[in-house]
Amino acid sequence: MIASHPLDPISPTEICIASDILRQQTYPTQLRTKVVDIFEPSKSEVLAWIEDCDTPVDRCARVYYHVAKLPHLWKAVTNVTRRVVESQEELPDAQGPVDYWEWELVHDACNTHPDVLAEIKKLKLPEGATVVNDPWSYGTDNANERRRLFQCYMYIVLNDDPEANHYSLTAPFSPVFDAHTLELCCIDFLPLDIRDETTETQPWNAARPVEYSERILGSDYFRQDLKPLQVAQPEGPSFSVKGRRISWQKWDFHLGWNLREGPVFNNITYDGRSLFYRVSMSEMTGPYGDPRTPYHRKQAFDLGDSGFGLTSNTLALGCDCLWHIHYFDGFRCDAQGIPVLMKNVHTNFRNNNSSVVQDRQLVLQFTATVANYEYILAIIFDQAANVHIEVKATGIVSTMPSKQGIQHEWGTIVAPGVMAANHQHLFNVRIDPALDGQRNSVVYEDCIPIGDSDRELEPFGIAFRVESTTVTQPGGYDLDITKSWVYKIINSNHINQISGKPVGYKLRSISSQMIMMGPSTFNYKRGIFAGRPTWVTKYKDDELYAAGEFTNQSHEDTGLAIWSERKENVENEDVVLWYTFGLTHVTRPEDFPVMPAEKMMVSLKPTSFFDFNPSNDVPRSNQKFNQSRLTDCTGCPRSDSRI
Amino acid sequence: MIASHPLDPISPTEICIASDILRQQTYPTQLRTKVVDIFEPSKSEVLAWIEDCDTPVDRCARVYYHVAKLPHLWKAVTNVTRRVVESQEELPDAQGPVDYWEWELVHDACNTHPDVLAEIKKLKLPEGATVVNDPWSYGTDNANERRRLFQCYMYIVLNDDPEANHYSLTAPFSPVFDAHTLELCCIDFLPLDIRDETTETQPWNAARPVEYSERILGSDYFRQDLKPLQVAQPEGPSFSVKGRRISWQKWDFHLGWNLREGPVFNNITYDGRSLFYRVSMSEMTGPYGDPRTPYHRKQAFDLGDSGFGLTSNTLALGCDCLWHIHYFDGFRCDAQGIPVLMKNVHTNFRNNNSSVVQDRQLVLQFTATVANYEYILAIIFDQAANVHIEVKATGIVSTMPSKQGIQHEWGTIVAPGVMAANHQHLFNVRIDPALDGQRNSVVYEDCIPIGDSDRELEPFGIAFRVESTTVTQPGGYDLDITKSWVYKIINSNHINQISGKPVGYKLRSISSQMIMMGPSTFNYKRGIFAGRPTWVTKYKDDELYAAGEFTNQSHEDTGLAIWSERKENVENEDVVLWYTFGLTHVTRPEDFPVMPAEKMMVSLKPTSFFDFNPSNDVPRSNQKFNQSRLTDCTGCPRSDSRI
Repeated sequence: MIASHPLDPISPTEICIASDILRQQTYPTQLRTKVVDIFEPSKSEVLAWIEDCDTPVDRCARVYYHVAKLPHLWKAVTNVTRRVVESQEELPDAQGPVDYWEWELVHDACNTHPDVLAEIKKLKLPEGATVVNDPWSYGTDNANERRRLFQCYMYIVLNDDPEANHYSLTAPFSPVFDAHTLELCCIDFLPLDIRDETTETQPWNAARPVEYSERILGSDYFRQDLKPLQVAQPEGPSFSVKGRRISWQKWDFHLGWNLREGPVFNNITYDGRSLFYRVSMSEMTGPYGDPRTPYHRKQAFDLGDSGFGLTSNTLALGCDCLWHIHYFDGFRCDAQGIPVLMKNVHTNFRNNNSSVVQDRQLVLQFTATVANYEYILAIIFDQAANVHIEVKATGIVSTMPSKQGIQHEWGTIVAPGVMAANHQHLFNVRIDPALDGQRNSVVYEDCIPIGDSDRELEPFGIAFRVESTTVTQPGGYDLDITKSWVYKIINSNHINQISGKPVGYKLRSISSQMIMMGPSTFNYKRGIFAGRPTWVTKYKDDELYAAGEFTNQSHEDTGLAIWSERKENVENEDVVLWYTFGLTHVTRPEDFPVMPAEKMMVSLKPTSFFDFNPSNDVPRSNQKFNQSRLTDCTGCPRSDSRI
Repeated sequence: MIASHPLDPISPTEICIASDILRQQTYPTQLRTKVVDIFEPSKSEVLAWIEDCDTPVDRCARVYYHVAKLPHLWKAVTNVTRRVVESQEELPDAQGPVDYWEWELVHDACNTHPDVLAEIKKLKLPEGATVVNDPWSYGTDNANERRRLFQCYMYIVLNDDPEANHYSLTAPFSPVFDAHTLELCCIDFLPLDIRDETTETQPWNAARPVEYSERILGSDYFRQDLKPLQVAQPEGPSFSVKGRRISWQKWDFHLGWNLREGPVFNNITYDGRSLFYRVSMSEMTGPYGDPRTPYHRKQAFDLGDSGFGLTSNTLALGCDCLWHIHYFDGFRCDAQGIPVLMKNVHTNFRNNNSSVVQDRQLVLQFTATVANYEYILAIIFDQAANVHIEVKATGIVSTMPSKQGIQHEWGTIVAPGVMAANHQHLFNVRIDPALDGQRNSVVYEDCIPIGDSDRELEPFGIAFRVESTTVTQPGGYDLDITKSWVYKIINSNHINQISGKPVGYKLRSISSQMIMMGPSTFNYKRGIFAGRPTWVTKYKDDELYAAGEFTNQSHEDTGLAIWSERKENVENEDVVLWYTFGLTHVTRPEDFPVMPAEKMMVSLKPTSFFDFNPSNDVPRSNQKFNQSRLTDCTGCPRSDSRI
């Protein structure tokens, strides 16, 4: 039996106990659970356990729930080990994340409501055609709104194939439902022209959907000239897994997982030296730049509104994953607090081989589908002690109906009558460092040309200086890319004996356009974290999510916007670095029906952490080991045969 | 017999003919060849040949040479087909690239010169130790200098192993030699302290080198826990090669190659549609930011001074390359114009499999070692019609001697007594587009928030507009990353029927710090291309190299700096897009003895070029096809076994 880790994900048994405690102690019959997930122990408890793993650490659960059919959200922390409720509060101003049960209720209410059916009838669809709907987070445009609302976007399906691309045929109206009462609040009519005006629903203008499914397109549609590619490690993989602790090539870490963030990397060490206490994706906001009502509200928070863990995909061997693979399952609860297995949802490993000799990588990959969009998150560990965080955005762009033959200012026509609005994806990754201990600092380094400023020091005008500034106050920080953007985490108490500099890891970032929505908009106020690339806070237990704990229909960012305002020292302290990056997506027909993956990668790289290249002891690879093949290329003349 | 292509690389026979013509017609005995390489036919000739491959196109060679022992460089174009000299000129102000023969002459002259030996003697090295030298491009700090100079950096080697890391033990003096007369011009004494002062050579302060060689370190030094990884395509690769024409998954292109640029991608088409006439790396400059003499001159132009083709590596099966591989050989000339085979130097193919389902890639990879540095260039074609250009910088950082126990403003101590100066690597890639024809335009797109500027158009303050500006004049162009940097090549004569926009490809770029050396410095004047990210010129035959044809000891950029000044229309014309990118390298102990690869990637992506995702017809992969394996992970409990 392998010792359990205090940061292990919640187990089915724990889900049952957590909801039972709450049900028995407070609401015998009326408990409606939304989320039962791990509530992580405090850092001090975990560190004590790492010192001595006989130290007992209680297991706790975070529970979001409703009482009876009352709309107010409640939150409790239940202690599963001691079987007590530790805390419990009513949150009248917060909306919890979407859960599958309510999503289905809203979906069904919409698809059966007489007013909606009447509207569908006006479309005069051909026989066999139906209308489906995607309930979306409503967004925010009214500070007084307290209902729990869903905006149902409607699409036309011409056949009963579940793989039909309904995003290709948009219906021009969008009902709004209250998820608690399941009442229809209104039907928004969607603007079809370049301005805001709408019309009554007209008969559908027949169009051919752009499909992607093999079953619909038929096998003749597809390329026949691709040959199989197989990867083998005849002696097995180089990594080992014990419980949720993974070891590979001097790396060692604990793989946590929860419904909101998906994979969480805890207690990352290299060659026995402490690097990071916790690394995870903390939020993603996707604001759309189309001001026509109701699109002006369109802004998803894919971790806070839904959850990367909750929406993670079941992966299948040989389809999604090559190489040696180890899967982990996950568990969510249903509305009665009963655990539901999420098979292989989680993370797969690959022992990738990049093109550089002597560079093997451990890849932990994870896929979440949030409505139309799909995110592939990979954390990659390499032999040079780098950690790479790679995000790929793919899936289907969110579509809107459009008049034919026009061009839009706010997006692109991607198929006849289908417009995809321009939008942004802004991710935040939370990095809780522990370089040679918990007391670290964040510094930024600018490369500044000396120029003519000091001709005595520098007569030639060719030199540049690396200017290092220590962040002493929490806050959101910019950096000028023309000065070579580098943030570094250092431990000023440990000096590298070779370079004389403090041990550190630098963040190799990408520069992104920050959120474009103006400071007076709800869209900005809800996601202030997306307005600056780099944030520094002093560590506090349970401060995990960049935009705050509750983002659904939120009015303001209750995360970094608040935590970074505290007047406290962050130099040589237990400090957290948050990094916002992303892309502005100007849509193209090539993004339809399925968008090719758009890739972003940021890296954490040692700088004066080691005395020399930590991969210096990686043996050279050779042909006996790797068995590559020269292509048998008949008809290939030598390159000098032409004369 | 496969028809030859007019852009095929020069063959050994052609090298012989080209130098023979010159020798026979002009200099029977006194010809000293430096470079004999392909001189590409004009674009109009190549396009005529593509139309009708019976159109004869003469084969020509570019020859750089000296006459007798005279220092002036000569350049000739010889017509190999007609066996005539087409043009010939003396270039008194230009220095040709380094060739192996002169490099060895300088190397040997330095290592045997009595003054140098006297200096070495002062080091009082232990028995068995020797001094080696690396002749470097001299750089420029004097507009009147016309000698051909090499700066020889000296290093200490304690044993006779050829893999000993001499960059770890630096000698404190650096002789300068004239490559024509082989005379010693002077011995520069290297500054050891933070300022410019130098001292006479002192006895060597014994230090242990930081080694990387398996033979020196012994096998016990290396990790034992890495298991082999093998990749197989049991039905063979999916690409085909005919002569130098490569086809894969609707892609088709001709793979050229020359001594200066290495691989060149000609006539790239996708599904029969023309995309690019020619894509290649055009220059790389590496200026160092250390103003202490003689380091203020240190600035390599790795294509112009040496050549990515000339310095390309011989690759070995199973060591450098996995997957199915096809190698191409290359040829250079020696000083007598005799062809020398460069085995497998060139480009290897891999059929890579990225982590996204349905995404296979064709990787053409190429490695060049320029003195201490190593560049790995990969051009990656994918199924979504994207072209990715990936550059990895690795190898050994250039080292300088230093006093012990101090810290430097201009670099980092990477090993005891060894300093590595901070520097930049600025690459330029030349993109000659032919989107649906030769007449294309370059536009740039900014994403601009509407904000409060137009409340009638946009009442909510959340929208952003894509502002497109057409480049009408040649020049160097910046872009503001905070507005989402996108340059696009479009063909305004072809409108996408879905989006209503002109067909195009966008450059997904990375933002880099441009060259930091001030405008009055030689370092900047020689590499003006490195001062702006994007350049646009009107196509002219033989305008290929960003910093001009001759960079060695150049005084000014004779490439983009001049071509972009011409007052001519570039809208809807035969236009060329040049893109400068790179990194500022602040050195770390982790970069020593061998630097882990630093990766940069830019991409060319279709935007309204296709009516929908061009990879929509890629069949789904499956387990039967790919045969992946689940890890046999003994001791792996289910994730709920902890309670």
